[in-house]
Amino acid sequence: MAGIEEIHVQAVQWIKEAGQRIIQSFETILDIETKSNMNDLVTNMDKDVEHFFIERIAERFPDHKVLGEEGSGHDLDELNGIVWIIDPIDGTMNFVHQQRNFAISIGIVENGVGRIGLIYDVVHDELYHCIKGEGAFLNEKRIEPMREATLEESIVGLNAIWLTDNKKIDKNITAKLVREVRGSRSYGSAALELIYVATGRLDAYISMRLAPWDFAGGTIIIEELGGKVTDLQGNPVHYLKKSSLIAAAPKLHQTIIERYLS
Amino acid sequence: MAGIEEIHVQAVQWIKEAGQRIIQSFETILDIETKSNMNDLVTNMDKDVEHFFIERIAERFPDHKVLGEEGSGHDLDELNGIVWIIDPIDGTMNFVHQQRNFAISIGIVENGVGRIGLIYDVVHDELYHCIKGEGAFLNEKRIEPMREATLEESIVGLNAIWLTDNKKIDKNITAKLVREVRGSRSYGSAALELIYVATGRLDAYISMRLAPWDFAGGTIIIEELGGKVTDLQGNPVHYLKKSSLIAAAPKLHQTIIERYLS
Repeated sequence: MAGIEEIHVQAVQWIKEAGQRIIQSFETILDIETKSNMNDLVTNMDKDVEHFFIERIAERFPDHKVLGEEGSGHDLDELNGIVWIIDPIDGTMNFVHQQRNFAISIGIVENGVGRIGLIYDVVHDELYHCIKGEGAFLNEKRIEPMREATLEESIVGLNAIWLTDNKKIDKNITAKLVREVRGSRSYGSAALELIYVATGRLDAYISMRLAPWDFAGGTIIIEELGGKVTDLQGNPVHYLKKSSLIAAAPKLHQTIIERYLS
Repeated sequence: MAGIEEIHVQAVQWIKEAGQRIIQSFETILDIETKSNMNDLVTNMDKDVEHFFIERIAERFPDHKVLGEEGSGHDLDELNGIVWIIDPIDGTMNFVHQQRNFAISIGIVENGVGRIGLIYDVVHDELYHCIKGEGAFLNEKRIEPMREATLEESIVGLNAIWLTDNKKIDKNITAKLVREVRGSRSYGSAALELIYVATGRLDAYISMRLAPWDFAGGTIIIEELGGKVTDLQGNPVHYLKKSSLIAAAPKLHQTIIERYLS
């Protein structure tokens, strides 16, 4: 059976190759006139990148399983063995509109426990990656452990939609939080927002509705850097279930849950 | 008197030099431990970059005036002659927290009319610039004229703070807008958000409270690309006054004002 270092080396190589495929697709995008065709292209690109991973994983690591956003991986109801949890293009709307602010996200989980996390900001060629217990890196540079910020000095990633009427959270709670922190941002890619938390560019990230492929890679990297990721009730996130999510350094994480969410 | 092309060439050269100063300051930032010292550094950096422009402009174009965020320029109550409207670091909070997602913004106005716009995304070395009537460019590449999007397919730049109780706008109006568009984003730099509108990465940008140095450069570039920038009542923005602001392609601009703001 392949060792974790070997899997990491392969994952890094493949994610960079997948990034190249996406960059090459931009030239096609620029030839496309209408938005509807653009959306087709994006769907194709999502599927193409997911297939790229599925094929290579099946050949190189036939005992591994894949859980992907496009649903072309395995149908899993438990996390036995090694599972690659993949979002081929996290931030699809940004991919279409901006050709930036999207990422490839991969979390590799062994018997339900995160072992490897990778988030690749393709356009800026920034690969964030870790093996659990061995530190996290931006390309070859080690990322510093996460620092605590007080609530009042923190910048929080939170989309404005959660300050409108919705079924997930009382909008008065999110409004109170936004008023009491230093600032809020919204980038439209959970993977990038989680890596912003990991690197201290955001102090916290909150979403009411994410899938495992949105948060697996980022969660593993944040935990490696000493941060905490749970659902809004403070329960651990599960790599097979959709979930609300809050990510931050532990004290700030606790403060936000205690003051606003419990 | 200097011709507009000559002024443009100088402005491009100086904004790149100023960017280099900021990049070099990052090394100092990395040595700084506490947030309070970090804030001091940023204030110093803002002032340093503004002085850099003021000194060079005074020497090369002694008849030009400067209006800057740091207030070390001229005290103006009218826009006679040529005025450089400068934000040395637009997105200061991002500069501190992220060392990215900030820009240098310059609008050069002649007798109150925008003639040259420059926004420099320093970290990504992306200089957006135009001379009125001669097209707008990202570095050397011409930027396509702005396209219309319907309200339902548009992505709007709007900070979540405007969906909380505030003195500028009824939060129910902004909430309704956020629910009815395809998505909202918030990047924390008006200059970058305006250039995102100019390049079609955002379809509209709305803010309730901006100063001339926040919007001068971006407004000139957006207008050059066929877009519209006004206050929320639809009146032209004034380069000496603080203002609310909405920027978009003309039809979408009109739709948002008619459906939500009037």
